[in-house]
Amino acid sequence: MAQEELRKEETLAMRNRLIGQSCKLFYSEDPVKIVRARGQYLFDENGKRYLDCISNVQHVGHCHPAITKAAAAQMDVLNTNSRFLHDNIVLYADRLAATLPQKLCVFYFVNSGSEANDLALRLARQYTQHEDVVVLDHAYHGHLMSLIDISPYKFRKLAGQKEWVHVAPLPDTYRGIYREDHPNPGQAYADTVKDLIEDVHKKGRKISAFFAESLPSVGGQIILPQGYFPKVAEYVHSAGGVFVADEVQTGFGRVGHHFWAFQLQGDDFCPDIVTMGKPMGNGHPLACVATTAEIAGAFTANGVEYFNTFGGTPVSCAVGLAVLDVIVEEDLRGNAVRVGAHLKDLLTKLKARHEIIGDVRGVGLFLGIELVIDREKKTPATEAAAHVVKRLKEEDQICVSTDGPWENVLKFKPPMCFGMENAELVVQCIDRILTVTSLMTPHRLEVNTTSHNISLPPGKCSLPEDDILKFHTFIIQNK
Amino acid sequence: MAQEELRKEETLAMRNRLIGQSCKLFYSEDPVKIVRARGQYLFDENGKRYLDCISNVQHVGHCHPAITKAAAAQMDVLNTNSRFLHDNIVLYADRLAATLPQKLCVFYFVNSGSEANDLALRLARQYTQHEDVVVLDHAYHGHLMSLIDISPYKFRKLAGQKEWVHVAPLPDTYRGIYREDHPNPGQAYADTVKDLIEDVHKKGRKISAFFAESLPSVGGQIILPQGYFPKVAEYVHSAGGVFVADEVQTGFGRVGHHFWAFQLQGDDFCPDIVTMGKPMGNGHPLACVATTAEIAGAFTANGVEYFNTFGGTPVSCAVGLAVLDVIVEEDLRGNAVRVGAHLKDLLTKLKARHEIIGDVRGVGLFLGIELVIDREKKTPATEAAAHVVKRLKEEDQICVSTDGPWENVLKFKPPMCFGMENAELVVQCIDRILTVTSLMTPHRLEVNTTSHNISLPPGKCSLPEDDILKFHTFIIQNK
Repeated sequence: MAQEELRKEETLAMRNRLIGQSCKLFYSEDPVKIVRARGQYLFDENGKRYLDCISNVQHVGHCHPAITKAAAAQMDVLNTNSRFLHDNIVLYADRLAATLPQKLCVFYFVNSGSEANDLALRLARQYTQHEDVVVLDHAYHGHLMSLIDISPYKFRKLAGQKEWVHVAPLPDTYRGIYREDHPNPGQAYADTVKDLIEDVHKKGRKISAFFAESLPSVGGQIILPQGYFPKVAEYVHSAGGVFVADEVQTGFGRVGHHFWAFQLQGDDFCPDIVTMGKPMGNGHPLACVATTAEIAGAFTANGVEYFNTFGGTPVSCAVGLAVLDVIVEEDLRGNAVRVGAHLKDLLTKLKARHEIIGDVRGVGLFLGIELVIDREKKTPATEAAAHVVKRLKEEDQICVSTDGPWENVLKFKPPMCFGMENAELVVQCIDRILTVTSLMTPHRLEVNTTSHNISLPPGKCSLPEDDILKFHTFIIQNK
Repeated sequence: MAQEELRKEETLAMRNRLIGQSCKLFYSEDPVKIVRARGQYLFDENGKRYLDCISNVQHVGHCHPAITKAAAAQMDVLNTNSRFLHDNIVLYADRLAATLPQKLCVFYFVNSGSEANDLALRLARQYTQHEDVVVLDHAYHGHLMSLIDISPYKFRKLAGQKEWVHVAPLPDTYRGIYREDHPNPGQAYADTVKDLIEDVHKKGRKISAFFAESLPSVGGQIILPQGYFPKVAEYVHSAGGVFVADEVQTGFGRVGHHFWAFQLQGDDFCPDIVTMGKPMGNGHPLACVATTAEIAGAFTANGVEYFNTFGGTPVSCAVGLAVLDVIVEEDLRGNAVRVGAHLKDLLTKLKARHEIIGDVRGVGLFLGIELVIDREKKTPATEAAAHVVKRLKEEDQICVSTDGPWENVLKFKPPMCFGMENAELVVQCIDRILTVTSLMTPHRLEVNTTSHNISLPPGKCSLPEDDILKFHTFIIQNK
């Protein structure tokens, strides 16, 4: 393929005509056409370079030559399905096993995090012979019908909550029901799951699984309080259920010191099922479910074959192996530790200077900055977050996006080769944008907390008129 | 990756330990390790060559250099997600649109046929606001939870039939309720769907979709009677439902004269949703849903984003475009017409000489040979079919497999570069194997039609003892 065959307007017109409009574009008002990428950089059709702070799929960097080489070499030799014996699938499973607690020793290869979570749900139900699932509020586990059912982020907007789904509070120590000032938020949040399970039992129902992202992502880049997972696992096991850790967004060393984010909850903690996806193939459709011999055995015992056409092909596994190699060879976990710590440190300093930054949180290269209208009430600064995203794109060619129930959390989950200088640049740019914004809206911003509409105060400010006009226009357009 | 890093026994031992045993191996008693493939040939670790009659995924041939080249070139340049504008996705959608009736003009790219069928179900329900689904008996639409629900082939062995699922008879004119001798089997089978819909309405329920493979594959390589789809579509539309054609196994020119198998049902017939998968990326995980502007519009109207992480990436679409190019450049549809006709002709001649062949059916390179113990009762010759598969592998290095509710249908869906000489070889080999088998079991085979156990008669036969021994052993092992 040529890098650009169509003019951007043609591409956009064809996209609007041919691709389902539920498939949204980034920056939908003025979408970006990207024709080339390398490492942590994206390039548009005019050669303009963007710094990518959000592509966690391109884990070891966009278009890493080692990954391309491994894929092409294997494509040239063999790419059958996993019904034939092949070395790649077993070597890859073995390498993955080495990153996990010993108990998680059986693997199923699939094509997407969604397929992995759907299979995890099947495994949990088959093993426990129970039906019900406990999930965290605002969770997102995938686009499939079965996963919309267990994703409050989606089902609230669609078919609603099924009788077998139970939503536990998001253990968010910044704005949740138990906060930093609580003596033991991990225990307190775990107790909400315990209470929920008791309610489920009172209804004569039984828990098959507790399903959670190891670090809730769509929920707002949440870092779970210590002790939460082990306690929840204890309660879930007592109820005869299994613990599923969704590592689709967080696995493969993103958190730095640990290979898996669930390991942040202590060396003794081990889920019963782990699902993985996005970063696994650096863009190649590759995902996996890891589980115990007991759970896998129960699934086998039903006597029905599980066949996934493209799951675990020689090419997929060659790509997966190459990704693991690059993580080690380039010390990307070490980089995530160093750059992540520096970025968090810089953002924390920024917080001291900008009232609008309510919280800075994160671990490794998984970070969030929560913007609030006022620090006491923690009113989400949704429009301001969107404004920062837009300005970063337009003025600095930096791609950042928002998450959280109010879309007021700026999230960072860049390719793992993200550098110190990248961290410094993005913080400088956010500083500049927030300075401008706060001058325009100096604490007098009136906020309707129901609709989150913002009315700008009539007072004058010392900024150029077009900046104010842009901000007004932006806010009006986004109402 | 080296072609073979482990000895075969090690690979097998690791596979047994590390990969879920629900993921079955071909020839499970003596699995084959394949290390290399090209065109329609597979090569094991000793360089032994197998003729591949079953890999419909490797549509344009294993490891086609044009596909590898396209994938590697795009991997080297860019592989972001579809939230950024890119030419490949729109150019590919445009090329697919050109193969379909004009009405099917909106596309959603996903990673597997299963993801495509799950999305089709969501689209149908969102558009119709109805819940129920009519499916064909013995159908298989994928491994996801939502699809097991609409796959009698799976749900009968698992969770059972949901109240919103309704099973219509498989329009099999060989052994179904209406056969070749019926004056209008297409109408008669369509009327069974009409009756089913009436029953559904009597229960106060409403049809969202009729879901069918354009040529039922797991059902036994079934060729649907003329007029069936148009009539069914009429009834389904009257009930406010939509018609979903599952082309995951049958699309992309496999049937030769037509690009899509649903087109065998007449130029005027057009489904409301078409799903595609397996052959689309020649092994790369790539699948798609095509639908009408109205159905896509209803899906957009719910206001919820549909994001598929790996769906429609620049690499997936580059691969998809390359597959379309090769189909044209190498006239693979013409090849499917010519070789398929020759293979069918040879098999039909074989039928005249072997009582065990009850039926030969197919179109293009989608063929089935149904083996029966006796032609009148059509008792499925399940063990004989397994025996043929095993002999073809062991003696001739030919890979064929079985399908159908009784696993008595030998199926052919080879890479589309399958040649005349391949067709002739496979027919010669089947002829030889059936000759041996029939000498051993000359119409005196006693058959227990319930369990399909076969007791060999005590009578002598003129074959070498070890052949008879092998057959006995085989039958005992497979009881």
